Amino acid sequence: DANLKIFSLNSNTALAEEIADVVGVQLGKCSVTHFSDGEIQINIEESIRGCDVYIIQSTSAPVNEHLMELLIMIDALKRASAKTINIVMPYYGYARQDRKARAREPITAKLVANLLETAGANRVITLDLHAPQIQGFFDILIDHLMGVPILGDYFSKKELKDIVIVSPDHGGVTRARKLADRLKAPIAIIDKRRPRPNVSEVMNIVGNIEGKTAILIDDIIDTAGTITLAANALVENGAAEVYACCTHPVLSGPAIERIESSKIKELVVTNSISLPEEKKIGKIIELSVAPLIGEAIIRVHEEQSVSTLFD
Amino acid sequence: DANLKIFSLNSNTALAEEIADVVGVQLGKCSVTHFSDGEIQINIEESIRGCDVYIIQSTSAPVNEHLMELLIMIDALKRASAKTINIVMPYYGYARQDRKARAREPITAKLVANLLETAGANRVITLDLHAPQIQGFFDILIDHLMGVPILGDYFSKKELKDIVIVSPDHGGVTRARKLADRLKAPIAIIDKRRPRPNVSEVMNIVGNIEGKTAILIDDIIDTAGTITLAANALVENGAAEVYACCTHPVLSGPAIERIESSKIKELVVTNSISLPEEKKIGKIIELSVAPLIGEAIIRVHEEQSVSTLFD
Ligand SMILES: Nc1ncnc2c1ncn2[C@@H]1O[C@H](COP(=O)(O)O)[C@@H](O)[C@H]1O
Ligand SMILES: Nc1ncnc2c1ncn2[C@@H]1O[C@H](COP(=O)(O)O)[C@@H](O)[C@H]1O
Repeated sequence: DANLKIFSLNSNTALAEEIADVVGVQLGKCSVTHFSDGEIQINIEESIRGCDVYIIQSTSAPVNEHLMELLIMIDALKRASAKTINIVMPYYGYARQDRKARAREPITAKLVANLLETAGANRVITLDLHAPQIQGFFDILIDHLMGVPILGDYFSKKELKDIVIVSPDHGGVTRARKLADRLKAPIAIIDKRRPRPNVSEVMNIVGNIEGKTAILIDDIIDTAGTITLAANALVENGAAEVYACCTHPVLSGPAIERIESSKIKELVVTNSISLPEEKKIGKIIELSVAPLIGEAIIRVHEEQSVSTLFD
Repeated sequence: DANLKIFSLNSNTALAEEIADVVGVQLGKCSVTHFSDGEIQINIEESIRGCDVYIIQSTSAPVNEHLMELLIMIDALKRASAKTINIVMPYYGYARQDRKARAREPITAKLVANLLETAGANRVITLDLHAPQIQGFFDILIDHLMGVPILGDYFSKKELKDIVIVSPDHGGVTRARKLADRLKAPIAIIDKRRPRPNVSEVMNIVGNIEGKTAILIDDIIDTAGTITLAANALVENGAAEVYACCTHPVLSGPAIERIESSKIKELVVTNSISLPEEKKIGKIIELSVAPLIGEAIIRVHEEQSVSTLFD
């Protein structure tokens, strides 16, 4: 379909290539570089007039750079007469700043939604938002995809015996329940308190994990404090072995070190965030979200083509 | 006036301190740092409810970082019930991307204007926009200050003899004319072509510069290709000596090296962009825009207080 164009910005070109393969198109030609002073320079090197354009960009680190690339690209596409501009954001940066937890805090997740709309985005396709409420921050259509089936399939194929799905905190119990349903397993919860951001403290375990194969699940693993303390607490409390999984491997600061020296046997993540070579350690298994996202693009594009027929 | 608050972000804290001194207030307390993954974290540490707030931030390099700091700060202030949010942007980044010069280019200067309005800015105070038309990109009030009087005063006090003000390109003639009026001097123009961005080529000189003290003026000096080639061409064509001045010392890439090895005797700039220590070479004289901006803030704040009286 000549009216469907997929462009990749700089956050995740390998995933973008895979997605284009699934959809059955070539990536659009564009260059996203910097002027000497660090300002972003975008050149779109083919006509996109009248096209449904999909931009693949996770707002992973460097988040401000990646977000500005995205906003400037949207502006350029809008001015070049794209028919629709669809943002594919496998990882939605700033999602944790989704409410005023303290006085005078920004709600940056909402700001980002407003910035995308202002630039000219018509639709957003994203994956495992930190809080599903972020969907409501948008007045444009948003497709919210789920990573749990991908993680679940992986563990199904492993045929592990006597498993228990563990949420590393109270906020993640619904997610753990979803994975447990797929794997027909019980759940447990780590009952912990976190005194400040990026610092974790493990408390006690609610549920039976004795002698079992525990699978910890979270949406984001950032500094990996929470998940590694949880894993070690599980082993100390009698779990036979501990796997961990998440959709978004942010893995900042001491994360890799902590994971290596933890009791986690294997950490299963998706490629929503591109891992640099130095973070691809033996314990980390990367699953691709390209089929999931590619199919979403095909579905959305069919919808957009149909809506044109009836316009 | 307890209703007037000035906050500094990270681009230019020294200037912000000076501005606060001129206005006669203390800088507001806030911390602008990063979470472990690089996302910006802002804490406003005093109440600003019902206040007219001024944020001092140039969108100089790293431009995307500084712009996002600004947008997030605006969001936080808005949600903390500021009465008005006034952006003081001595240097407006992305100003050179102010039109579609080629097909499918973004107009990032307009995007930035829209982003500031979307975040919640009520007013913008800025200095020597690369194109004055950028004022029209805003639907909110914009105060456009001029650096020429500051540069002019400096050269007046030097009492140089037989001067000629030189524009390094066609686009800068109006600016050169303004400085020439202040210094009661004639003008000349360098007639050059630039094949690509950040690359310059000097052609011939229109006007009489023989035996004169030439003062080159530009709004922005970025890689300094244009200005140093112009200076050298002036000397080769018989100028007695060459000064250069600009409002915004971007000074990226090879700029400092080029200036040092050029025929420029002295480069006079303002502190609209904060110069790191390694760029403060002997040839560079820095003039402060704090009095100009401080007085603008006092004027705007009086206006805002008066408008409240009649609301
Ligand atoms: N990038 C980040 N890294 C660490 N903590 C963050 C980040 N962004 C926001 N937060 C904090 O994390 C909290 C939200 O996390 P949660 O309770 O897991 O939803 C908020 O109180 C934020 O202040
Ligand atoms: N940060 C930048 N550095 C160098 N060139 C730029 C930058 N931003 C925009 N430009 C280019 O500079 C041109 C505008 O400069 P001017 O002709 O001096 O107004 C445009 O064609 C832009 O493509």
